[in-house]
Amino acid sequence: MVESVAMTSGTAHRLHEVLGRVRPVDITWRDRAEARLDELTKPSRSLGRLEWIAARLCAIQETLRPRVTPRRLIIFAADHGVTEEGVSAYPSAVTAQMVGNFLRGGAAINVLARALGTHVSVVDAGVAGDIDASGHAAAFVSRRVRPGTLNMTKGPAMSEDELASALDIGLDILDGAAGDDLAVIACGDMGIGNTTAASAMTSAILGVPAGEVTGPGTGIDGEMLARKIDVVRRALAANRPGRDPLSILRTVGGLEIAAIVGAYVGAAAHRMAVIGDGFIATAAALVAASICPPFLDYWFAGHRSSEPGHTLQLEFLRQQPLLDLEMRLGEGTGAALAMPLLDAAAAVMNEMATFDSAGVSGRAGDPGRMAVRP
Amino acid sequence: MVESVAMTSGTAHRLHEVLGRVRPVDITWRDRAEARLDELTKPSRSLGRLEWIAARLCAIQETLRPRVTPRRLIIFAADHGVTEEGVSAYPSAVTAQMVGNFLRGGAAINVLARALGTHVSVVDAGVAGDIDASGHAAAFVSRRVRPGTLNMTKGPAMSEDELASALDIGLDILDGAAGDDLAVIACGDMGIGNTTAASAMTSAILGVPAGEVTGPGTGIDGEMLARKIDVVRRALAANRPGRDPLSILRTVGGLEIAAIVGAYVGAAAHRMAVIGDGFIATAAALVAASICPPFLDYWFAGHRSSEPGHTLQLEFLRQQPLLDLEMRLGEGTGAALAMPLLDAAAAVMNEMATFDSAGVSGRAGDPGRMAVRP
Repeated sequence: MVESVAMTSGTAHRLHEVLGRVRPVDITWRDRAEARLDELTKPSRSLGRLEWIAARLCAIQETLRPRVTPRRLIIFAADHGVTEEGVSAYPSAVTAQMVGNFLRGGAAINVLARALGTHVSVVDAGVAGDIDASGHAAAFVSRRVRPGTLNMTKGPAMSEDELASALDIGLDILDGAAGDDLAVIACGDMGIGNTTAASAMTSAILGVPAGEVTGPGTGIDGEMLARKIDVVRRALAANRPGRDPLSILRTVGGLEIAAIVGAYVGAAAHRMAVIGDGFIATAAALVAASICPPFLDYWFAGHRSSEPGHTLQLEFLRQQPLLDLEMRLGEGTGAALAMPLLDAAAAVMNEMATFDSAGVSGRAGDPGRMAVRP
Repeated sequence: MVESVAMTSGTAHRLHEVLGRVRPVDITWRDRAEARLDELTKPSRSLGRLEWIAARLCAIQETLRPRVTPRRLIIFAADHGVTEEGVSAYPSAVTAQMVGNFLRGGAAINVLARALGTHVSVVDAGVAGDIDASGHAAAFVSRRVRPGTLNMTKGPAMSEDELASALDIGLDILDGAAGDDLAVIACGDMGIGNTTAASAMTSAILGVPAGEVTGPGTGIDGEMLARKIDVVRRALAANRPGRDPLSILRTVGGLEIAAIVGAYVGAAAHRMAVIGDGFIATAAALVAASICPPFLDYWFAGHRSSEPGHTLQLEFLRQQPLLDLEMRLGEGTGAALAMPLLDAAAAVMNEMATFDSAGVSGRAGDPGRMAVRP
């Protein structure tokens, strides 16, 4: 049962206009890319999933010379009222503190993005605390919708207007990014309590019990994990969001997650490749894919998080992750680590010699490939 | 049953001298690295296998500030007399042609290494054909022991002197690399027919039937794959190498595989991290680990190849690969793709802020971590 999309008409109009611009990729470009890959000096398909990445990039960009720069990793941060139920190992104050850390360049995502060649920007979509914005290691955008969501065990996490504003953040930022001619984007998350929100969203969208999708997050177990599962159940019982993805996002989601949904849909509308991250960002992908099925033509599952619900999300989306490194940090760290695989795939497409150009003989008995040394 | 090491006394002396210099890593450095990782602004262990890589690098280098450059990927090339049995989709001439392609920079490994920041050098350990060495995209070392091995279905692939010379190539090159202060090395392979040799080695070392470890290689199936399995069986029956790894290497291995064994042992002796590659390079790792168990302290399984025998090799070595991208090209391509993970791991160790330095609160209820904003 799909319920009506509960949004103010202004944003419903804007989101639906953007959704209407997301086109499935033209798979004939994938076929052309695969034919080109078979001309390169390697056994056919021997680069495995790297060739699959290359062909998908070609289809997204409608070219046989794909590019993977410029690119940007955008971290969306917000707080969660549900933390007052005692669901996280860390206090809410850490959200604002970590935004400061991102801006000073000391967090894991700064370090990984720097090492692997991706620019980082940080967006306050709804942080509760004061942010020390004196650091300049990352660009900072202040678009605080409200200081954290409401406690979702007691009612909707946000109002319809707030959801609209949060979605707009992502749409706006991607419109700006399109002006910079970005080829690839990734979204990261920061928000103490957001694995609880993502668990509730995943339970509702996948239609599986809370206990199956709710995991340790930043590292809780035992009694605290049992409480977190109970909180997810109570949030869903209090809101009864049904199966409509935007109602789920509004009632048991988060401001940063909604902003990522906007950014994901916007990226697909602008024909950018999107690298997925962990459990939080993939909760946003569940919504984006539900309201916009061609979105998945643009989205690459960057990694598999060790958060157990992430595997269920990836199975629901029928996506196999590029990396599986038992990480569970968020911030976009899984996406950042997948970037070099896109670099490699694009380089194969753009730089490898063909059998003919290199004077390399093809398969025995394949006269079309028997090359003459130049 | 371990048979005697059948080698000329000169090389036996040199190899054993190098083996004697390979020390297990001091695991107290791993513990110190893990303690340091727990001070960084992320939930404990939340970077998963990246932290495991970082701690292993620290233990290898006996530092908390590991480095991953300078580094080099060395491709060892040689031909295989067994190709006259019809085991490959490609003619033997491709070995020399691909060496030319490496030197001109057009092969997959050139492209990946360039994209991901690793220098490539190429070593002729026993190519049969003429090499066009006019390209300069990679350094070239000519150490041809003989123009390809003998047909191992009719007797040993190489003599004892030839094995000694091939091992020396790797040992010599690593002695030279140590002068360049390399932190990390990887070895790639090129040799039409070498999956047949690696299959025979793997069957003998693991003690499993030829049919279980022999796969499609560059892309054969059906009748040709059945013939390849029969060739592996006949090679083992003709040579009866027993369980001694160096006898196996000599009788059913290859010159490039022996050179990789020398390079692997040499790298461990020089305390360099070694990134493994696919089925061929891991056949060399089986020998290195068998004759030198502490070798595995220095070796990272770079990826899992889609060649089925590679999974059995990794299980035998009890190693979980960093990447699993369904690749089966060799040349060091899997190792090259794993390099950014080492970059990322080292950067985490060297560049991330601590909870204290960043003014980020630790876990609730952990007073040692409650930080005061500076």
